[in-house]
Amino acid sequence: MQDLGAKARAAGRELAKADTGAKNAALFTLAERLVEEAEAILEANREDMRRARDNNLDAALLDRLELTPARIEAMADGVRQVAALPDPVGTMTDLALRPSGIQVGKMRVPLGVVGIIYESRPNVTADAAALCLKSGNATILRGGSEAHQSNQAIALCIRRALQRAGLPADAVQVLSTTDRAAVGELLTMPQFVDVVIPRGGKGLVAFVAEHARVPVIKHLDGICHVYIDADADLEKAIAIAVNAKTQRYGTCNTMETLLVDASMAPRALPELGRIYRDLKVELRGCERTRKFLPEAKPATEEDWRTEYLAPILAIRVVDGLDAAIRHINDYSSQHTDSIVTENYTRARRFLREVDSASVMVNASTRFADGYEYGLGAEIGISTDKFHARGPVGLEGLTSQKWVVLGDGQVR
Amino acid sequence: MQDLGAKARAAGRELAKADTGAKNAALFTLAERLVEEAEAILEANREDMRRARDNNLDAALLDRLELTPARIEAMADGVRQVAALPDPVGTMTDLALRPSGIQVGKMRVPLGVVGIIYESRPNVTADAAALCLKSGNATILRGGSEAHQSNQAIALCIRRALQRAGLPADAVQVLSTTDRAAVGELLTMPQFVDVVIPRGGKGLVAFVAEHARVPVIKHLDGICHVYIDADADLEKAIAIAVNAKTQRYGTCNTMETLLVDASMAPRALPELGRIYRDLKVELRGCERTRKFLPEAKPATEEDWRTEYLAPILAIRVVDGLDAAIRHINDYSSQHTDSIVTENYTRARRFLREVDSASVMVNASTRFADGYEYGLGAEIGISTDKFHARGPVGLEGLTSQKWVVLGDGQVR
Repeated sequence: MQDLGAKARAAGRELAKADTGAKNAALFTLAERLVEEAEAILEANREDMRRARDNNLDAALLDRLELTPARIEAMADGVRQVAALPDPVGTMTDLALRPSGIQVGKMRVPLGVVGIIYESRPNVTADAAALCLKSGNATILRGGSEAHQSNQAIALCIRRALQRAGLPADAVQVLSTTDRAAVGELLTMPQFVDVVIPRGGKGLVAFVAEHARVPVIKHLDGICHVYIDADADLEKAIAIAVNAKTQRYGTCNTMETLLVDASMAPRALPELGRIYRDLKVELRGCERTRKFLPEAKPATEEDWRTEYLAPILAIRVVDGLDAAIRHINDYSSQHTDSIVTENYTRARRFLREVDSASVMVNASTRFADGYEYGLGAEIGISTDKFHARGPVGLEGLTSQKWVVLGDGQVR
Repeated sequence: MQDLGAKARAAGRELAKADTGAKNAALFTLAERLVEEAEAILEANREDMRRARDNNLDAALLDRLELTPARIEAMADGVRQVAALPDPVGTMTDLALRPSGIQVGKMRVPLGVVGIIYESRPNVTADAAALCLKSGNATILRGGSEAHQSNQAIALCIRRALQRAGLPADAVQVLSTTDRAAVGELLTMPQFVDVVIPRGGKGLVAFVAEHARVPVIKHLDGICHVYIDADADLEKAIAIAVNAKTQRYGTCNTMETLLVDASMAPRALPELGRIYRDLKVELRGCERTRKFLPEAKPATEEDWRTEYLAPILAIRVVDGLDAAIRHINDYSSQHTDSIVTENYTRARRFLREVDSASVMVNASTRFADGYEYGLGAEIGISTDKFHARGPVGLEGLTSQKWVVLGDGQVR
């Protein structure tokens, strides 16, 4: 692993000064090769799938693991989209002249070496490699053992694409080892690894956060709220509350708790109750909620803290904005929270006072996503405050150094 | 400590929404109180000094510990300067309209709770409290046991100033305990502490980096380089090389190794040798350096890795820009490195390819400083790449959350 780390560090230095053209050429070649080598990748994937079935892995995992010609096409498309994004590296900003005569500004630079630890989806191999390559970072990828063959087949395409573009082949290294010791080492080599990004379930993220001796961009729970304010437009409120919960149940930006101002409850809750009932969403409400929705089960303290990732919704009636903000800052996982209101001042207060990675006015929490935000793609969503919050794209994979331009100035 | 952490978290929430006027009022009151209470602070400091002398602490430490009326005045001035800086909190930027109709941008927000662990200088208590307060962060300050009385006297002024401005008194908590266990706890409460900043010697920083389970803004060595390029203006080169080494010996942005292009060595080294000799700087050179400066001791591999913090300079003759950049990226501590050249293309390459927190052209490394960069003040200098590099001011104590403004959009 030390040797692998040293190779990544050396490749990272080369990549940091690579020009945009070379990086894009590698990405376009990678996209081509994924399509050309589709049959080899699918064959490797079939082998992984066979072993996964033999090991009785569950249906959800098998679905994430499986590649199809369409999924490979989508992977290639994703890589082409990253090529089309502007290159953040080298951008200089804010070059201010100082009284001493020096000019001081910042230049955006890669972080260096990024470790990615992920679970069953083989498409992460191509996605993560593409984002790191474009942002000038070397990558060490460690996928799930169940996707081993698929990942190696994709890794071969990446390696060839790097070589064809004249970039160091070690810029993207896919760990072939399947033991946990390699992960442990990856997490504890600050001399070679600048940041680790775990992509997977809570168990994986918690393991990485616990053991890492390098910075981690981590994504824990997504307990997202929509608050329907006293001055909400009812139609918008209904549309957002339904969309935020039901457009997809398993995503981190799905609403898990709906807060309703007491004055809006009589108008909003019965109608929402009918819609959720039709969509088979199980409701759990506070006592005041259950006056309007007797079919809701009583919500417990535990419900306010739960990321259901399922057709279940907790509902609480609150007295005004302060109570709503207090509930959110107490129970939210600081992922994404939205207010529905026509009131200007309360909208501004919600934006300022809710301490979450994404804070919204009159929009569905489902918009918290790299593509929707215009990042092009995301390497993950951070629920930390340090370095990057929310969807992390190319910029989140970079840092800024200071540049000073002088004419011989001394102090 | 848990209780103290919970108080800091609650105070941080209040402070995050405090308006600039209240924060500035607290800062101006603090500056006033420091001056009014100068006699009480000096008395506390005299007690610390007595104990320090009884414990035979060395002269350098005694100098850092000692307060004088002038030093208290300077402390008050520093606090007033922070009050005069623009408030970064709440600034919204880059509000782009997306194809979906939502408007997406970023708002600058405090990190939350900042832990500062520092050694003997009592002025850090006021400096750090002021910067954290202005950036909307609650602070837990843990100074050196030798400055205990002085820090408590300053802490009292801070507490009163917060109360007078109607801000939570727990926004700045100065640990009265002097045991190491409190530090250990401070480093391992991610639920209450968002970042820890150690300010002190290498031992302290290494201890914090080793034990922290929260993010750390850390400053390790300052092994800074000046490279005199083949196309350097000789006059600028001499001025910068002398200033970078000799203006102050003990600071982290002092040059420790001078690199000279082979073609410049015959002109630059003899003259520099004369000046350094007059200033009593001990020289250690590579073989080629010693041809021009026979009085220089032979430099060893160890010299390239050493932060002397003393009137000692390592000198190496190199063949061109690539060799200089290679030396810097191999041996520099990624703090501050400067090229002296009139060559446009080599200047651009140096800026791009040297991977240090501050990269300079034709300026003394001594400029790497929060005041010189226009940050107004610095809470520290980061040699990390994650979150913040180089001098860390108010902005480095903040993060950005996403804001989304919609009109009822759903996905």
